[in-house]
Amino acid sequence: MKLTPEVKRILDNYETDSAATKANLARLLMHGKLGGTGKLLILPVDQGMEHGPARSFAANPAAYDPHYHYKMAIDAGLSAYAAPLGALECGAVSYGNQIPTILKLNNANSLSDIKNQAITGSVQEAARLGCVGIGYTIYPGSDYCYEQMDFLQELIREAKAAGLISVVWSYPRGGPFLDKAGETAVDICAYAAHIAAQMGAHIIKVKPPSDHLCLPAAKKVYEDQKIDISTLAKRAEHIMQSSFAGRRLVLFSGGEQTNDETLYNTFQSLKDGGATGAIIGRNTFQRKREDALAMLEKIVNIFKG
Amino acid sequence: MKLTPEVKRILDNYETDSAATKANLARLLMHGKLGGTGKLLILPVDQGMEHGPARSFAANPAAYDPHYHYKMAIDAGLSAYAAPLGALECGAVSYGNQIPTILKLNNANSLSDIKNQAITGSVQEAARLGCVGIGYTIYPGSDYCYEQMDFLQELIREAKAAGLISVVWSYPRGGPFLDKAGETAVDICAYAAHIAAQMGAHIIKVKPPSDHLCLPAAKKVYEDQKIDISTLAKRAEHIMQSSFAGRRLVLFSGGEQTNDETLYNTFQSLKDGGATGAIIGRNTFQRKREDALAMLEKIVNIFKG
Amino acid sequence: MKLTPEVKRILDNYETDSAATKANLARLLMHGKLGGTGKLLILPVDQGMEHGPARSFAANPAAYDPHYHYKMAIDAGLSAYAAPLGALECGAVSYGNQIPTILKLNNANSLSDIKNQAITGSVQEAARLGCVGIGYTIYPGSDYCYEQMDFLQELIREAKAAGLISVVWSYPRGGPFLDKAGETAVDICAYAAHIAAQMGAHIIKVKPPSDHLCLPAAKKVYEDQKIDISTLAKRAEHIMQSSFAGRRLVLFSGGEQTNDETLYNTFQSLKDGGATGAIIGRNTFQRKREDALAMLEKIVNIFKG
Amino acid sequence: MKLTPEVKRILDNYETDSAATKANLARLLMHGKLGGTGKLLILPVDQGMEHGPARSFAANPAAYDPHYHYKMAIDAGLSAYAAPLGALECGAVSYGNQIPTILKLNNANSLSDIKNQAITGSVQEAARLGCVGIGYTIYPGSDYCYEQMDFLQELIREAKAAGLISVVWSYPRGGPFLDKAGETAVDICAYAAHIAAQMGAHIIKVKPPSDHLCLPAAKKVYEDQKIDISTLAKRAEHIMQSSFAGRRLVLFSGGEQTNDETLYNTFQSLKDGGATGAIIGRNTFQRKREDALAMLEKIVNIFKG
Amino acid sequence: MKLTPEVKRILDNYETDSAATKANLARLLMHGKLGGTGKLLILPVDQGMEHGPARSFAANPAAYDPHYHYKMAIDAGLSAYAAPLGALECGAVSYGNQIPTILKLNNANSLSDIKNQAITGSVQEAARLGCVGIGYTIYPGSDYCYEQMDFLQELIREAKAAGLISVVWSYPRGGPFLDKAGETAVDICAYAAHIAAQMGAHIIKVKPPSDHLCLPAAKKVYEDQKIDISTLAKRAEHIMQSSFAGRRLVLFSGGEQTNDETLYNTFQSLKDGGATGAIIGRNTFQRKREDALAMLEKIVNIFKG
Repeated sequence: MKLTPEVKRILDNYETDSAATKANLARLLMHGKLGGTGKLLILPVDQGMEHGPARSFAANPAAYDPHYHYKMAIDAGLSAYAAPLGALECGAVSYGNQIPTILKLNNANSLSDIKNQAITGSVQEAARLGCVGIGYTIYPGSDYCYEQMDFLQELIREAKAAGLISVVWSYPRGGPFLDKAGETAVDICAYAAHIAAQMGAHIIKVKPPSDHLCLPAAKKVYEDQKIDISTLAKRAEHIMQSSFAGRRLVLFSGGEQTNDETLYNTFQSLKDGGATGAIIGRNTFQRKREDALAMLEKIVNIFKG
Repeated sequence: MKLTPEVKRILDNYETDSAATKANLARLLMHGKLGGTGKLLILPVDQGMEHGPARSFAANPAAYDPHYHYKMAIDAGLSAYAAPLGALECGAVSYGNQIPTILKLNNANSLSDIKNQAITGSVQEAARLGCVGIGYTIYPGSDYCYEQMDFLQELIREAKAAGLISVVWSYPRGGPFLDKAGETAVDICAYAAHIAAQMGAHIIKVKPPSDHLCLPAAKKVYEDQKIDISTLAKRAEHIMQSSFAGRRLVLFSGGEQTNDETLYNTFQSLKDGGATGAIIGRNTFQRKREDALAMLEKIVNIFKG
Repeated sequence: MKLTPEVKRILDNYETDSAATKANLARLLMHGKLGGTGKLLILPVDQGMEHGPARSFAANPAAYDPHYHYKMAIDAGLSAYAAPLGALECGAVSYGNQIPTILKLNNANSLSDIKNQAITGSVQEAARLGCVGIGYTIYPGSDYCYEQMDFLQELIREAKAAGLISVVWSYPRGGPFLDKAGETAVDICAYAAHIAAQMGAHIIKVKPPSDHLCLPAAKKVYEDQKIDISTLAKRAEHIMQSSFAGRRLVLFSGGEQTNDETLYNTFQSLKDGGATGAIIGRNTFQRKREDALAMLEKIVNIFKG
Repeated sequence: MKLTPEVKRILDNYETDSAATKANLARLLMHGKLGGTGKLLILPVDQGMEHGPARSFAANPAAYDPHYHYKMAIDAGLSAYAAPLGALECGAVSYGNQIPTILKLNNANSLSDIKNQAITGSVQEAARLGCVGIGYTIYPGSDYCYEQMDFLQELIREAKAAGLISVVWSYPRGGPFLDKAGETAVDICAYAAHIAAQMGAHIIKVKPPSDHLCLPAAKKVYEDQKIDISTLAKRAEHIMQSSFAGRRLVLFSGGEQTNDETLYNTFQSLKDGGATGAIIGRNTFQRKREDALAMLEKIVNIFKG
Repeated sequence: MKLTPEVKRILDNYETDSAATKANLARLLMHGKLGGTGKLLILPVDQGMEHGPARSFAANPAAYDPHYHYKMAIDAGLSAYAAPLGALECGAVSYGNQIPTILKLNNANSLSDIKNQAITGSVQEAARLGCVGIGYTIYPGSDYCYEQMDFLQELIREAKAAGLISVVWSYPRGGPFLDKAGETAVDICAYAAHIAAQMGAHIIKVKPPSDHLCLPAAKKVYEDQKIDISTLAKRAEHIMQSSFAGRRLVLFSGGEQTNDETLYNTFQSLKDGGATGAIIGRNTFQRKREDALAMLEKIVNIFKG
């Protein structure tokens, strides 16, 4: 598969990575309907773990089966499928060679209110399962953030040595400075993306930022410097800028959407702002398969467009 | 021993496991009176550790002797015998080749109210004792849950590398959201089973769920989606579904029973709902040997039926 | 890329391999113009090392450049490109993601008459360079054969642990029983393929066998049992049979050919006998690029046919 | 590059270090416009991580790009560039051979009020990126100080084994005895420098000390012994003295300055007191490139002078 | 030190090396009077080991002192100094930071007629001494060649992991096919260079080839293909071509010269043929210092020219 100029340009930004890590990044960027465009659309399914199985899958009981999600990611022509250990083990042989996979190495659950996550996998398992990379979540702001980062730096080092890429979910949460609105404030979101970039992430996952400004010291700067955060596209542009001037790939979730139209508008704005792509889980598997395929097709076209 | 089609079907669900791990799982599934049926009945004896020796064994003093339990599991034609390190070391040479064994790697005790467990064994010891697998308990909801899970992922990885299976006791306990009723609520029980599945457990152990719903967010979903939890059979079905659409084996304890009749009814309902089988400890050794053998025979027949 | 039934059938023959190793085997089997057919055509370039640079490349000086061979394998739609360390390092970043590569871990050279090979790479390097597998040559019959095999078993073990496949060149050579004719005798060739299969090779490389029978004890059996070795197709069938009844993939070189027509006839016969495919080096790069592309296209069509 | 007598004199102070570590220290001391003078001027850029990207870079948006800082350090003829992992990975191949680099191994962030730092890199990564050394921050006084020091001793040991130098940012913070004024009190600053020296740091980074005295027991001694702390130059002299009588190199930040004139005066005083040089981050990249180059030129001349 | 376009072009040929290895290669290529030209002139001093001290140094007794050679390489503005362990240990602290050094890891001596070399150093020592790389000699053709190569592949792997470059002296010697004339025959020299390139060497050292052709099979090809080997320049061109079409750097010794004029002519011819540069030992230290400096200046100018 010949790399497109856009994919080559992106790979050049990862100048210290090994041939093996670059090959895995290339596999991801060349796969599926967005293959070669430099854009990515990834299906993550860890909500059973995070919110419980019925809350996640009862609306579409076929989704209780881990094979369902593999097939969805393959049939929709997505870039990759990301999930915890147990779910990937269920289908790595049957479907693993048809879609790049990412092993999520930590996960929270809703039975606890501790702002941390449990380690649920390892770089070694990701290699055994033939994944292109690992996923890991940090909660900037949380009291557990520093130890999450300590562990992340070990994982990223191990992953690079094993030729795997690292995808970091950087979700501001808790701590002394962040209220609920602060968790998606644009200054906080940009900060979270920057932290992940500095940790050595190849791909960064954040939530779409609101126009709220949270930290007083930051607020002053945004106002003094007249940073344009008036539209979601402008805010996405700012997040990309905060991720090493666009040298790192950044994916966004769809946020909490009331209907599909606003979801598509969200992704269109993110695309307009230069976002690398999207990660979309619940909206995918909590509807009928054919509806999900139609929705994903639209999102693919938005990012292709 | 030729694998039955049912056992083959089950093994196919463990598609990423090594030949050695699959062989141990097959040994378990082909052993005893339920051998080949895809059902399991396991004798666990860790109550001396968990509640103290007299509370556990005074009703039937023969049970103070670890050999008693090996012999019971063998003579009753059970699938396996599970116990902590000391007890298995007492009989692994004399009886280990007559019954699959599972080394429990952590255990609580009643002298503490910390909602955690002590590590009492290792994968290395399980291999040395010729066990088919390891057992480990997590307390979803507890403040120790995340660190229990951190350690569990290491153990499961090690166990797989050593060709052993992993049995996870997933017992919701404590934390900010669970009261006593919540610990056996059907939404919580389904969630606990799902967490164990995602961690990579081969076999999951839960308690029989009540029709209580605990988490408000979950309650809403169960009601909106009209998930049928009216009978124990239906609830067992839901637990199996939450364990990767039945791709993982799930065992149930008998719950706290007043008499044998309700115990048999419980197991009959669980069987009707598709449960893989049962784990039954106290009810076994706190009665005379011949009574226990008769009771186990009945339970075997329920799951065979 | 959806696996074809034929590729699935092949993967099922590697039932104890990890998901990662199977994924690499699938990548190989799904790549290029033969992708999905279960057949393979691989370009090996180690002749500069084995025979010297001028003998290898002077007929087509563009071939002195390692990039030339990467491009040839890619443009001809071959299944993979195999070469020693230095050559792969020259292009692994530029071309590595466009074609599966195999790192050859040992190589002979023509300045010595020792019937052995030097170690020229490692599994670790193969992983760093993003290869799908390793290649290694043994000389059954040679006085060095046992130590070559000792080392091969270590490499295959390491490769499997790293999720890589192993390709074994099994070339009978020297020793007390083999004269020149014996090195391609059908009984010897079948024996060499079987040795590689027993060592755990995923793919076996042999030379096309002549109808000569070398070992007296074997000769008697072939004659008594009336094993049909009258045509090359029949002999290829016998080699496949000797490779675990076709459960292992076997590639053939073209032998020493006088002209292209006999080369195509050779491959057609091998194909008719069930051969997995071919490895063709010198014949590829010792002619003009356009001629090589035309020749490879014909061979692809023979194996597709 | 022939070592100057001054650089030789400095290297002699590191008499137990390996040739490799000394060579890296020499590379640093011989590089840039201050090369050979025994003075150092280093550009550190971790403020995006510590204060957030917009607060750090919005005043000069070109600075969002990690390449900007590499180029600044090179074009200004500085001694070295120090940054966290992600930023160095972005340019280590493009610029790494034109400027000595220091990998910062821990970093705080402003979303937390925990007086600790996250581990964000490793000695192994510093070696892979071709850095001359590692950087690490400790917070003497903080509740985390002992564990920070525990880890620092491991890192310094590893760094020495890898032939790298260690730069320790020793920033008193928090704990039972330090109020805000205490954090830059001269007795505390001297103490912090001494702790870093005792840990085995090759280069120590402190803030310019005020004439405040914080610890009562120390205060008494400073007064009794009439230690002259009346001018910044005298206080710098005292810090150097506290760093093994000047046998260790000590760098100072510019402190929080209102304008460039006071900044230059600060550095002139520090120079007069024998300071090894300066580390200057925010003041560099929060102004236009040409202004930054002019400012750095002046500071170079102060330390040359 | 800003890389010149020529040096950048060369570094691009080493596309799979780490940032650290590339930085060491850049240090070498940017150092000394040839810095930035893409050419190299290296002083090797292992003749005391190879031929005995008096044979090596009696003509210029100052050369008994290892410091003499460090100073020579520095004062002559050479690219690097290469020597065995003991000699480098004598001056690594005094001079190591003024000149890139290469630790020779094996050496022959004249008290034995075994066509092998003793291991005299390690990658670990090279790192401890702050060297840019390691040096290692193989004797293609010798009965020891395969085991020399086995060990070389380990060393090169270790060196790359430590960020060091590898310089391979590839000296055909002995074995069944090489007589004395054959050891410098152009076909053999090209073959030896190619073997070193395939082993993963960054820099290859060979002797200037004669117009002799040694191997019959090769001779036929050179004649049939009319490869021009009529002048030393043409032969140098052929050696470069055999080293991955010039993608690897190749250094030549001066050969056995009767006077300086022929030496200069030799280097001029090699330069004209595209040689990367020269390694010149005995001719340097077996004359007076001022004469040696004058000679080296002339050679520098030849390669600059």
